[in-house]
Amino acid sequence: MIKQIQAPTLVVLRSRAQQNIRRMTEKAGLSGIPLRPHFKTHQSVEIGEWFRKAGVNRITVSSVSMAEKFAAGGWKDITIAFPVNILEAERIDALAGELKLGVLVDNTVSAEALNRLVANPLSVWIKIDTGYNRAGVPWNNAGSIGKLAELIASGGSHSFAGLLTHAGQSYTVTGRDEHARLFALTAERMQEARAALPPALRGTCLISVGDTPTCSAVDLFEGVDEVRPGNFVFFDLQQMLIGSCAQNEIAAAVICPVVGVYPERGEAIIYGGAVHLSKQADKLDGEKSFHGYVVSWDGRSWGPVEPGHYLKSVSQEHGIVHYGPDIPVKPGDLVAVLPIHSCLAMNLLKKSSIILE
Amino acid sequence: MIKQIQAPTLVVLRSRAQQNIRRMTEKAGLSGIPLRPHFKTHQSVEIGEWFRKAGVNRITVSSVSMAEKFAAGGWKDITIAFPVNILEAERIDALAGELKLGVLVDNTVSAEALNRLVANPLSVWIKIDTGYNRAGVPWNNAGSIGKLAELIASGGSHSFAGLLTHAGQSYTVTGRDEHARLFALTAERMQEARAALPPALRGTCLISVGDTPTCSAVDLFEGVDEVRPGNFVFFDLQQMLIGSCAQNEIAAAVICPVVGVYPERGEAIIYGGAVHLSKQADKLDGEKSFHGYVVSWDGRSWGPVEPGHYLKSVSQEHGIVHYGPDIPVKPGDLVAVLPIHSCLAMNLLKKSSIILE
Repeated sequence: MIKQIQAPTLVVLRSRAQQNIRRMTEKAGLSGIPLRPHFKTHQSVEIGEWFRKAGVNRITVSSVSMAEKFAAGGWKDITIAFPVNILEAERIDALAGELKLGVLVDNTVSAEALNRLVANPLSVWIKIDTGYNRAGVPWNNAGSIGKLAELIASGGSHSFAGLLTHAGQSYTVTGRDEHARLFALTAERMQEARAALPPALRGTCLISVGDTPTCSAVDLFEGVDEVRPGNFVFFDLQQMLIGSCAQNEIAAAVICPVVGVYPERGEAIIYGGAVHLSKQADKLDGEKSFHGYVVSWDGRSWGPVEPGHYLKSVSQEHGIVHYGPDIPVKPGDLVAVLPIHSCLAMNLLKKSSIILE
Repeated sequence: MIKQIQAPTLVVLRSRAQQNIRRMTEKAGLSGIPLRPHFKTHQSVEIGEWFRKAGVNRITVSSVSMAEKFAAGGWKDITIAFPVNILEAERIDALAGELKLGVLVDNTVSAEALNRLVANPLSVWIKIDTGYNRAGVPWNNAGSIGKLAELIASGGSHSFAGLLTHAGQSYTVTGRDEHARLFALTAERMQEARAALPPALRGTCLISVGDTPTCSAVDLFEGVDEVRPGNFVFFDLQQMLIGSCAQNEIAAAVICPVVGVYPERGEAIIYGGAVHLSKQADKLDGEKSFHGYVVSWDGRSWGPVEPGHYLKSVSQEHGIVHYGPDIPVKPGDLVAVLPIHSCLAMNLLKKSSIILE
C-alpha cells in the first residue's frame, strides 16, 4: 500500500519500463553492438539497476554532475554526451581517475584544453553534426574532423574513441519508415566521415549514434558500433505523436490533484504546472498547442487517452484542463497527466517520484 | 572574491533587487495599504530578509511546501495564493496552528472540506476571476460568491478574509497606460463583487490583488486593501517586453559556459538549456520565438542587450545562441542569459544561485 498522493508526483510503471528496456537491449544484442543508454531521462540510480540487470554496463549522461551521481552508483564506463565544458576540467579529471570516462569535442580550443588540463586518460569522441544543426563538426567537413582526431591522438594521455552524433532531427519527422530511413542516412554519413579520416586513426574509430525515434524504428542497428537512446525507457506523448511508441508503452505519468472545476467553461484546474511538467508544448491534432493528455487514475495505473481531455495551458503551479461539457472530476480527485516530454518532467519531479508495478 | 562559475548559475544583483523592493514597498506605504509580496519568484529565505528589512511582515506563496519553508524562516503571516488543495489538509492544519495562514477557495467542495478537515483557524479568501479565465468565481456571479462567503463564515473555526484575484491577463497587453487601466478595471470589478455580498459579510471583506505589470504601472494602489506582486524583485525579459520594467531594473541572469562556436552558422552553443532556464519562450520583435537575450558577463555584472544576440532554442542542457557573422565568444568563456521568466529559472537553479553586489 503506497501513501496517498497529495501533490504532483511522477509515477513510473515498472513492468512497462522494464519491457521497454528489454526490447532495446535485445535489439542491441541481435545487432551485436553495445547499448549505452542515456540516463538523463530517468536520472535514477534505482532505475539504472534495471538496465544493469538487463546486461547494460556502459551509460550516457548529459552533465558532469550526472556522471558523478552515477559514478557513485557504481557505473564504471560513462560518456558525457555534451560538448565538453572545459571550465569543469578539474571535476572531469577526478572522474577520469575513477572510471572509463568519455567526453565530446567539436573544436580545437576544447581539445587543446583537455590535453593541457586533464591528466587522467579520457576517451575523447568527436561530436559530428549529421544534419541536426546543433553541436558538432559537419559530417562532410573531412579536414576539420581529421585535424581534431590528430590533435586528440597526439595529446598524450587521451585516446581518440571515435565519432559520435545525435540525429535530433528525428523529432521533426513522423512514422517508422521515416525514422528508419533517417537511421540509415545517419549511419551512412558517419561512415563517410570515418572513411575520410587519416588511415592510422580509422582502424580504431568507433561510430556512436542514438536517439529514441530512429533506434525504436529499426529492427537492427546496422552500420554503427554503439547506440545511445534514452527516452525509450519511459517514452512520452511527443514520442507517441511522431509514431515512436504505442500509448500502452508510455511508462511515466504525473499524478495531479484537481483543485477547481469550471462547468461554464468546460475546464478544470489541477495542481500541476510548469514547475512539475515543464513548459514543453506540442501540437494537438497538428494545430493548437497543448501540454499533455489528462487521463483517469485509479491509484495503481492510468486510463486511456480521451482526445478531448487535455492540458490546455500551464502557469508556474496551475494547469488548465480542457474537458468540454462533461467534467468527470471534482476538487480533491487525482488525475494523471501524460507529459509531452518525460525527461523534463522527471528532472523536475525527481524527488517526488514513485515506482509502481 | 567569488568562486569561478563553472556551470549554469543564477546571479542576483543585490542592489538592483533591493531597489525594486524599495520602490514597491514605498508605493504601498504611500497608498496606505500593505504589500504582501509573492515569494514564489525568489523562493529564498535570504532574499526574504531583504523584504523584512524593508518593512514587509506578510507574504504570499504558491504551495504548501513553500509555506512550510518560509514558516521555518520565521514568517508568521502567509497566504497560499493557489486554489486550496484539500488533499494537503493535514499539512495545512499543522501550519495554521503555527501562524496566520490564508488559503483560497472558489468552490463549495473545497470550502466544506476545509470546515471538516482543518481544525486550526484559517483566513479563507474567495478566489475571484476578474477576466483572466484561470481559477476563481467570475466577479459578476454574486450568487455563488455570497453562498461561498456564508459557507466559510458559518463553518466554525475559520474566518472569511475577503476577495482575492490575480489579473494575469496583464501579461498579454503592453504599456504602462494599458496596465494602469487594467489595475483600475480589476479594482472596480472587485468592488462590485464586494458590494454584492450580504451586508453582514461586506464590512470586514478585504480586496487583495496583485500582478507585477499592473502594480508596476500605477503610481498609487487605489480601491484595494492589499497587493501581492512577486516578479518585480527580479523582473525579466517578459516584463521588459510588455513595458513593465527597464532593462537596467532586471536583477537576475543565468551565467552559462560557452561550449562550441559555429561561425558558418553564426551560432554558438552554451551549457544552459531547459533544465536551467525552462522552456518558456517569448516573441522576438513580435515574431519568431526566442528564449532570452545573451549578453556579456565580466564576472561582476552583465552588459547591455544587443538585439541580434539571442537564445534561439533550448534542449535539455544545450542552448543555441544566434550571434550572426561576428561571434564574440569562444569555448570556455562565460556569457549571461537574461531569462524570459525569472521565476522559472530561479525554481530550476535555486541550489546554484549566488548573490552579488
